[in-house]
Amino acid sequence: MPHHDHAAMRDCIDACTRCHAVCVETIRYCLEQGGAHADPAHLSLMQTCADICRTSADAMLRGDAAHVHTCRACAEVCRLCADACADMAEDARMRECAEACRRCAESCARMAA
Amino acid sequence: MPHHDHAAMRDCIDACTRCHAVCVETIRYCLEQGGAHADPAHLSLMQTCADICRTSADAMLRGDAAHVHTCRACAEVCRLCADACADMAEDARMRECAEACRRCAESCARMAA
Amino acid sequence: MPHHDHAAMRDCIDACTRCHAVCVETIRYCLEQGGAHADPAHLSLMQTCADICRTSADAMLRGDAAHVHTCRACAEVCRLCADACADMAEDARMRECAEACRRCAESCARMAA
Amino acid sequence: MPHHDHAAMRDCIDACTRCHAVCVETIRYCLEQGGAHADPAHLSLMQTCADICRTSADAMLRGDAAHVHTCRACAEVCRLCADACADMAEDARMRECAEACRRCAESCARMAA
Repeated sequence: MPHHDHAAMRDCIDACTRCHAVCVETIRYCLEQGGAHADPAHLSLMQTCADICRTSADAMLRGDAAHVHTCRACAEVCRLCADACADMAEDARMRECAEACRRCAESCARMAA
Repeated sequence: MPHHDHAAMRDCIDACTRCHAVCVETIRYCLEQGGAHADPAHLSLMQTCADICRTSADAMLRGDAAHVHTCRACAEVCRLCADACADMAEDARMRECAEACRRCAESCARMAA
Repeated sequence: MPHHDHAAMRDCIDACTRCHAVCVETIRYCLEQGGAHADPAHLSLMQTCADICRTSADAMLRGDAAHVHTCRACAEVCRLCADACADMAEDARMRECAEACRRCAESCARMAA
Repeated sequence: MPHHDHAAMRDCIDACTRCHAVCVETIRYCLEQGGAHADPAHLSLMQTCADICRTSADAMLRGDAAHVHTCRACAEVCRLCADACADMAEDARMRECAEACRRCAESCARMAA
């Protein structure tokens, strides 16, 4: 792990882990809300977001130099997911998900730099 | 899935699925060989390769437009993994893994284009 | 892998891999259909089914003796998912998913025996 | 989630998430130690443990009733992994991993009851 200090990587692992969990929980919430919340493209994006967060967190946990590539993808996917959730920002749950995605996108973008 | 024809995406899902499986099998083989085969950085890279292949295959299976980002990362990680396996090309198992990674890298690069 | 012959395990890996893929694809299909297809409990079960299939396939690919435990869970979850999909058997896509789950449940039950 | 109170499930999600992370980190540590630490069966078990912990955590995060099946498998696999790590209890890192596995096994066994 030559490129980043340990604290920054630990922070990114935490951001990915939290974003993964919030996305998985929020998918269920959206299914229960139905309507605009259950848009197929949005729910598919949230699951891909959860998956890439997990892949990136694990790459960092195992100290794999290839984390720069997974973190770059994670930053992009989280940004898309944050934007989609922010479009429903009148709902506190969606704001919370948008915020977890935004924080993860920023942390991963630093890791990928 | 506007950017790619269905057959190309199906081919990429197959390449990711095969690369994932070959990497998981080959990690065990490398552990049993020991020595140079059990290099920590190489085995870590192979597991990250298996993980990003799975994430990309699933993004395509669910028709998520964000697959372009996971496929871009997958192409990079598979290329690194193919090179590392090709360094042990005197071993038929490693050549097989290198080939699965190379084919997946090429297919994902086309998806990410 | 002392307890099962190689061909039976290979067959189970294939059944898990196929069931995983069909569930991920069918979740998206169900979201697009909406209505009864988008029942939150059903879609949550399908994603858990996809996840445990992946976990079991990987345990077998790496020759881990603990696959008996993951296969036992996989058999149970796939059985539940097959039943839920069979409840919509007037839809050919749901019948196909039910069949993939049923075949995986049977194969995993043999592995867990 | 009818069978368990919310706090117990939250505790189990945390135990699975922590066990997953500690296993992924400890695999890399074991590879770097080599020798008895890099036993193929042990490292394979640790990765299956990480995978089933993730599958169970996600099933609970999405409130899927099928979590009882994944948690039952998780309890068994974590118990095996705790025992294997405890065999190297002269190493503080392995003791820490054994403890995370033990705690997860107990929490998952309660969820599966």
